[in-house]
Amino acid sequence: MPTCITLLTDFGLQDPYVGVMKGAIATICPQATVIDLTHQISPQDIAAARFALLSAYPYFPQGTIHTVVVDPGVGTARRAIALRTESDYLVGPDNGVFSGVIQHHGVEAAVTLTNPEYWRSPKPSQTFHGRDIFAPVAAHLAAGVAFADLGPAIALDTLVTLEMPPPVHQSDGIVIGQIQAIDYFGNLITNLDRAIVAGHGSIVLGPHVIPLDATYSAVPVGSLVALIGSHGWLEVACNGSRAQADCGAQVGDRVYLQGDQSILPNCIGEIEATQ
Amino acid sequence: MPTCITLLTDFGLQDPYVGVMKGAIATICPQATVIDLTHQISPQDIAAARFALLSAYPYFPQGTIHTVVVDPGVGTARRAIALRTESDYLVGPDNGVFSGVIQHHGVEAAVTLTNPEYWRSPKPSQTFHGRDIFAPVAAHLAAGVAFADLGPAIALDTLVTLEMPPPVHQSDGIVIGQIQAIDYFGNLITNLDRAIVAGHGSIVLGPHVIPLDATYSAVPVGSLVALIGSHGWLEVACNGSRAQADCGAQVGDRVYLQGDQSILPNCIGEIEATQ
Amino acid sequence: MPTCITLLTDFGLQDPYVGVMKGAIATICPQATVIDLTHQISPQDIAAARFALLSAYPYFPQGTIHTVVVDPGVGTARRAIALRTESDYLVGPDNGVFSGVIQHHGVEAAVTLTNPEYWRSPKPSQTFHGRDIFAPVAAHLAAGVAFADLGPAIALDTLVTLEMPPPVHQSDGIVIGQIQAIDYFGNLITNLDRAIVAGHGSIVLGPHVIPLDATYSAVPVGSLVALIGSHGWLEVACNGSRAQADCGAQVGDRVYLQGDQSILPNCIGEIEATQ
Repeated sequence: MPTCITLLTDFGLQDPYVGVMKGAIATICPQATVIDLTHQISPQDIAAARFALLSAYPYFPQGTIHTVVVDPGVGTARRAIALRTESDYLVGPDNGVFSGVIQHHGVEAAVTLTNPEYWRSPKPSQTFHGRDIFAPVAAHLAAGVAFADLGPAIALDTLVTLEMPPPVHQSDGIVIGQIQAIDYFGNLITNLDRAIVAGHGSIVLGPHVIPLDATYSAVPVGSLVALIGSHGWLEVACNGSRAQADCGAQVGDRVYLQGDQSILPNCIGEIEATQ
Repeated sequence: MPTCITLLTDFGLQDPYVGVMKGAIATICPQATVIDLTHQISPQDIAAARFALLSAYPYFPQGTIHTVVVDPGVGTARRAIALRTESDYLVGPDNGVFSGVIQHHGVEAAVTLTNPEYWRSPKPSQTFHGRDIFAPVAAHLAAGVAFADLGPAIALDTLVTLEMPPPVHQSDGIVIGQIQAIDYFGNLITNLDRAIVAGHGSIVLGPHVIPLDATYSAVPVGSLVALIGSHGWLEVACNGSRAQADCGAQVGDRVYLQGDQSILPNCIGEIEATQ
Repeated sequence: MPTCITLLTDFGLQDPYVGVMKGAIATICPQATVIDLTHQISPQDIAAARFALLSAYPYFPQGTIHTVVVDPGVGTARRAIALRTESDYLVGPDNGVFSGVIQHHGVEAAVTLTNPEYWRSPKPSQTFHGRDIFAPVAAHLAAGVAFADLGPAIALDTLVTLEMPPPVHQSDGIVIGQIQAIDYFGNLITNLDRAIVAGHGSIVLGPHVIPLDATYSAVPVGSLVALIGSHGWLEVACNGSRAQADCGAQVGDRVYLQGDQSILPNCIGEIEATQ
C-alpha cells in the first residue's frame, strides 16, 4: 500500500513552489500518494496552519506523513523537526504548527532534521526548506528510512508550542470561548468542543444570541445557528449565507456559551463586566 | 488499472476539506487515482455544478466514479444517491447536479446510499457528507463493492432534476437560447449545440451582432466571435480579451441565433417583442 | 517507476479544464504521476509561463514530461511541438514558453505533433489542444511511445524563442538588470544570477538602495533585502511583508547592481542618464 504524504503550506497556487516539492518527493519516493491539505494559509499564519492540520489529521491512513511548511523563521536558527505520533508522522519547522495535534492526539518522539543524507543536497537553500529539507525528509520516511535516522532525538518538552487559550468556565455556568478559525463558507469555528457544549442552549456573539441546533437548515434561511461542525467544534453558521459577513466577526473574538436563553439579560451584563 | 475518482465541490481550496475527502478515500482504496474537476463552484450553485460535470464527463476512463458535493440540503431529508450510467458511476446528493449527464448520456440504475457499512462510520456528521458518506462510498465502489450493495434501488423517475430551458425555435428561423455558464476566460457558453447552430450565420447578444466562426483568432484582436467551444456548445468569446467584460453578460441572458446578418433590423424588432 | 507528467497552464481552477486534461491522460496512461506546476499563469502570459517552467524544471525525476498550455495561438498555424532535453521531455505550443529551459539546460531534438495517432481523436477541437493534443501526446510518451513517432523532426533553429534581455555590464562595474517575475509572496525576482551578483554589495530599485544578504531575516522586520532566491536568481524581498507593495514595482522594472554603497550618488546620476 503506498504511503500518504500530505502537504500544508502558505505558498499559494500561483507559483510552482508546491509542484516543485512534489517533484522532490517523486524523485525520492515515486510510489507515495501526495495529498494537498491546503496551500492557502495566510502567509506565515502559524495559528491557522495549526488549526487546519488539527482538523484534517484524523482522516488519513495510518502511517501518513503530514508535512507543514508555514515557516516565518526559514533561514534562522529555528529547528527543522519530525515527530512520531501513535499512528503517523509530522514533518516541518519547530514553531508551534504541530501543537494542536500534539495537544489532542499526543506525540511519542521527536528528532531534529540535521542528517544531510536525507536533504535534497548537502547545501539547502536559505529560503526554501520545503523543497530542500521537509519534502525530501517526508519522501525518505515514505520510502522506508527509519525515523531515528533523520537526526538526533530531542526532548518533547523543548518543542515550541502554540496553545489556544482554554475556555473559561464561570461560576454562573457561562463558558467564555473564542473564535479560533473562519472557514471558506464564512462559518465561525470556536474553541468549544462537544463535551463543553453539552447542556447549553445558546451562544452569544456580539449582539447576537444564537440557538444551538444540529443542522444548518434547522433555522430559517438567513438566520444564524450554532452547531457542532464536522471538525468537532461548535461553529456559528448562517443558513444559506455567511455568518462572518452577518456578524462582522474575526478570529479571536469572544463567544459566551449559556445554559438557557432566559438568562440573557443577566448574561449580557456579566459579559460586559468581564471585558 | 487503478480506478479514477473525480471530485467536484464548492468547498474552495482555503480549508483542508477537499484534502480530508482524499484522506477518506485513501484509507479505503489507496490505489484509486483521484482527480479534481473543480472545487470553486460558487457556494451551493447546483446549476454550475451540473454544467461542469456535464462538460467534463466524456473525457475520463471507463468506470470512473464522479463524486459531486454541492449540497445545500446537507443534513435535511434530501437523498444521497449513486447512479450507474452506461460506462461510469455518479455519487452525490439527489438535487439535480447529475441532470445534465442523465439528459445527454443516459442513466441505467440508481440507489440511495443508506447502507452504513460503506460510510466512514455508522454516525455521519450532519454537515460533511462529502467526508462521511460520498467519498467513502466512491472509494468502496473503486475498491470493488457492488453498486447494488450501496443501498436499495430507487426509480429513475423519482430523481430530482434540474433542466435547462430548451432553446425556442421561432417560425422565422431565429432560435432563442441563453447563456448557461461563463468560464474563467470570460467566454459566454450558451445552451445552443452544434446541430442547432448549423446553417446560421450570427448571434445577437444585447446590442452585439456576433459572427459565427471556427477560432478565436478568426476575428481581429478585441472583437467578439461566436464558435463551437471545446465542450460542444456555442460560446461567445473575444479574441485576446474577455467577452463577459465586453458584453456585461450574465448567466441566464438571452441570445438570438439568426440565419443571416441582413435580417438584423427585423430580428431586433422581434426580439424586443418577445421580451 | 511511474513516469511524471507536469502540467503548467493559464486555465485557472474554476472550470474543469485541468481535470479534463488529467482524464485524457488517465485514459491513455493511468499509471502516470501527474503533478500541477501551476494553472494560475495570467491568461496568455507566455513570459510568466517561461519563467515558471524554468524555475521548476530541475526538481523532477529524470524522464519527466513537462506539458505547457499557455497558448494564445490555439487554432492558428503555430506549431504544436515536443522537445527532448538531456534528461526530460517538453510538450506544448511553439511560442517561446520553452525558451528558458532551452537557454539554461539545452535541447537535443524537436518534433512537430502532426501524427494524429497520438491525439485524442483525428479531429481535435480548434480551441482546446491541451485536452485534444498536448495531454494525449504527453500520456503516450509516458506510456512508452517513441519520441520520433510523434511527428517529423524540425530544426532547432526554427523554434520560436522568447529571450530575456541580458543584463548590461557597464564600464563602471554597475550591472543593469530587470525584474523578470513577481511571486505570490511579493518577492521581486530579477534576471541577475549568482555569478553576476558575486562581489557586489547592494541593488538599487527606484529610490531604494537594498543591501545584499543571505536570508529574509538578516534585516529588521519591514526592511528590504536582496538575496539569491531558491530559484538561483537575485530577488528583492521584505522581511515579514511584501516587497512588491513596498516598492510599487512591476515586471520589467530596471534594477542596478553596484559594488559599493558609497558610489550611490554617482550611480543614481548615471541611472538617470541611461533612461
